[in-house]
Amino acid sequence: MIDDLLSIEDLDAGMITRILDTAEGLKDIAVRPIKKVPVLRGRTVCNLFYEDSTRTRISFEVAEKRLSADVINFSAKGSSVSKGESLKDTALTLQAMGVDAIVIRHSSSGAPRRLTEWVDAKVLNAGDGWHQHPTQALLDLFTIRERMGRLEGLNVAICGDVVHSRVARSLVQGLRIMGAEVTLVGPPTLMPAQVDSWDVTVSHDLDGMLADLDVCYLLRVQNERMAEQFFPSVREYARIWGMDIDRLEVMPEHAIVMHPGPMNRGVEISADVADAEQAVIVDQVTNGVAVRMACLYLMLGGEQAGAVSEVTPA
Amino acid sequence: MIDDLLSIEDLDAGMITRILDTAEGLKDIAVRPIKKVPVLRGRTVCNLFYEDSTRTRISFEVAEKRLSADVINFSAKGSSVSKGESLKDTALTLQAMGVDAIVIRHSSSGAPRRLTEWVDAKVLNAGDGWHQHPTQALLDLFTIRERMGRLEGLNVAICGDVVHSRVARSLVQGLRIMGAEVTLVGPPTLMPAQVDSWDVTVSHDLDGMLADLDVCYLLRVQNERMAEQFFPSVREYARIWGMDIDRLEVMPEHAIVMHPGPMNRGVEISADVADAEQAVIVDQVTNGVAVRMACLYLMLGGEQAGAVSEVTPA
Amino acid sequence: MIDDLLSIEDLDAGMITRILDTAEGLKDIAVRPIKKVPVLRGRTVCNLFYEDSTRTRISFEVAEKRLSADVINFSAKGSSVSKGESLKDTALTLQAMGVDAIVIRHSSSGAPRRLTEWVDAKVLNAGDGWHQHPTQALLDLFTIRERMGRLEGLNVAICGDVVHSRVARSLVQGLRIMGAEVTLVGPPTLMPAQVDSWDVTVSHDLDGMLADLDVCYLLRVQNERMAEQFFPSVREYARIWGMDIDRLEVMPEHAIVMHPGPMNRGVEISADVADAEQAVIVDQVTNGVAVRMACLYLMLGGEQAGAVSEVTPA
Repeated sequence: MIDDLLSIEDLDAGMITRILDTAEGLKDIAVRPIKKVPVLRGRTVCNLFYEDSTRTRISFEVAEKRLSADVINFSAKGSSVSKGESLKDTALTLQAMGVDAIVIRHSSSGAPRRLTEWVDAKVLNAGDGWHQHPTQALLDLFTIRERMGRLEGLNVAICGDVVHSRVARSLVQGLRIMGAEVTLVGPPTLMPAQVDSWDVTVSHDLDGMLADLDVCYLLRVQNERMAEQFFPSVREYARIWGMDIDRLEVMPEHAIVMHPGPMNRGVEISADVADAEQAVIVDQVTNGVAVRMACLYLMLGGEQAGAVSEVTPA
Repeated sequence: MIDDLLSIEDLDAGMITRILDTAEGLKDIAVRPIKKVPVLRGRTVCNLFYEDSTRTRISFEVAEKRLSADVINFSAKGSSVSKGESLKDTALTLQAMGVDAIVIRHSSSGAPRRLTEWVDAKVLNAGDGWHQHPTQALLDLFTIRERMGRLEGLNVAICGDVVHSRVARSLVQGLRIMGAEVTLVGPPTLMPAQVDSWDVTVSHDLDGMLADLDVCYLLRVQNERMAEQFFPSVREYARIWGMDIDRLEVMPEHAIVMHPGPMNRGVEISADVADAEQAVIVDQVTNGVAVRMACLYLMLGGEQAGAVSEVTPA
Repeated sequence: MIDDLLSIEDLDAGMITRILDTAEGLKDIAVRPIKKVPVLRGRTVCNLFYEDSTRTRISFEVAEKRLSADVINFSAKGSSVSKGESLKDTALTLQAMGVDAIVIRHSSSGAPRRLTEWVDAKVLNAGDGWHQHPTQALLDLFTIRERMGRLEGLNVAICGDVVHSRVARSLVQGLRIMGAEVTLVGPPTLMPAQVDSWDVTVSHDLDGMLADLDVCYLLRVQNERMAEQFFPSVREYARIWGMDIDRLEVMPEHAIVMHPGPMNRGVEISADVADAEQAVIVDQVTNGVAVRMACLYLMLGGEQAGAVSEVTPA
């Protein structure tokens, strides 16, 4: 039903809604005594991670096992990569072994799309360079919809290091497809150069916009980039752009605070906000499993129609 | 039935007996053609290892798979830990993903207990700093009881680097709870400073006590600590404290020699003793799987009453 | 039926044929919707890799999971090996935990055979030093037989760094056992010193033999060895020994080109040959899974006769 999942741009509003609806049905599995459905039994999914990512890898692995798939973890460390094997040869190898889906995280933008040229296996982009992280965007959309009941017309701010963030890029696209309004806010040096093509508003005044927000999405500060590039210290960042209780109180009562994790508590988000009721950061993680189950299910589960009714919402 | 397993001190004699009895029933599974019971099917267990430990990790993984759990391995290398993610955020992430139990090995004493403050998932301490290693103590108690028929009143020596050993600390407590007598023996510099509170005897004369022992438990010599701290060489250690055939022959015929592994053959134990009939070191490893199955089963298996009769002893 | 699989030399023509026939039956599983058979359910297989090898490890892991075994991956990094644990102690540990089979890759020739002295578990050699790689040889034999319909009387060239290649050593023996004729071809410095005992022809003239070949098997060039030992550059190697389209066209129409992977495209094989129809390199990978399933099945599956008919060819 879905072929590969490389970029949020490949999806339209109907597809995204279908994924979110399927995830809604699958989320219930997490509270059953036996948290498994047999829909991918006998299917092999390979998690091909050329970059470290605990959260994303484990989220996919939990999703895959809950669908009863056989899981092969492949990290670039300790692999033929060190013998100079090309991505193409790795792809052909996995394909030849009969792997049904490849979840790939790679530091080069476009690597997942290259992969689809070489394999019949379904390809799922788990983050490529500064380009895309579509399942992160989908879980964020799921979480917003779950809390706010809708996506259309919402006022969403994305705050921080937008230029280096595939999370931001994918999420902006997803929000625009679903009809939400997006404002990018942060230091001018961290806004993308070609922002005109993004169909968003850019602001450098976080405090001035808080009262109108439905969602404030905080990006992770990359400590290693801070000193060099634009600011003397993380303390300075926290003061101007950090979400703390004072700023939270200016936001509408129904508004939510999001973060893709891992958080720098005390930098882009204060510890008390991270634990506040308005912060849905833990929900994002929970929903990540359900959304990834939905994507894998819609990509691979198609033939086993008998099992569909068991997992899709009525 | 058991909530978390953080320290041997949290258990009483009844609880320990219950675990050992359950392990006795589960040990039989290892000799079946199909070495699995479905009692944890659909449950997810995460092995969260911040320190290397092949034996312990594999023992838990075998135990988990034999109970049909889904297993997620997470080693601190190649994890968000390198991005500075706190233990708290990792805990909340695993919790949010619906993990049912976390087996944690950590270099900081008390890390497992901190974990329980953040998660509903069951927490199993697989070794924290110099503090506790409760499943090691339980498998040691199991092995002693299996060979000697009882624990109460036995005469047990624990020999070597006690001060740096969580194995020693947990085992002493377990033995005392079960009514065994314990003597710590080894170089004075490797005895704990607060030994008065341990309710044990301290001796520096291994040879003088051998004839009265039921169990001689040898701790691993940490080569890297030897030179600096107290002795010129491992050869010197082997001469004074090492278990060799001459010493073995002084012990009573029914007495056993134990070691938590991995052994330094030729240092704390000679190669011929390691392979002697009195050495139960291999039994300890076998029993480790059964004891860890028992702990996980008693922590997680409660709701599936139908399966209980299948695995517990009659 | 098979005890351990340490070296191709341990097998005779009947045994090899039995393995290839069984693999033929098992290969069909890969195209089923549910690519699993329950013949090793409840059995535990440990992949004990002291050397990196993505392809071989993943091929075994896919094979094991397709047979429904429980899989434990153990890589020497992050293991007690760094604490100085001996192979013997690791073996005894795995044995004590009830592991049913150990797949071992080790840099020391003979390590797998040592392992069999210590464990009852079946031992499968996944490559030891410059000694043997028997499942690679079996998958190569399978692939040749699949394409050519037979092995006896075929004319096979093995080209390149023979002296450092366990793949070459095992394959030569397998081919000779099955009645194929073998010519080793490559730089004189890379031919084995004791080649007289190999029962093969040695040639340094690749071009002169191409027209008579059924199979041209290219070995991987180890870049790090090139400069030091015998040639100024990989370009020089490619010119004299590399398989390119010009050479391919001299070979008979039915002839095939093989490579154990990972390939150095542009060195021992040109990119267009790697993707040509005569190149069966991808088939080798596919067949690797089936052959490893066959070996594990014949080693471990014996008792469950009920499942046999399901997986063996009629």
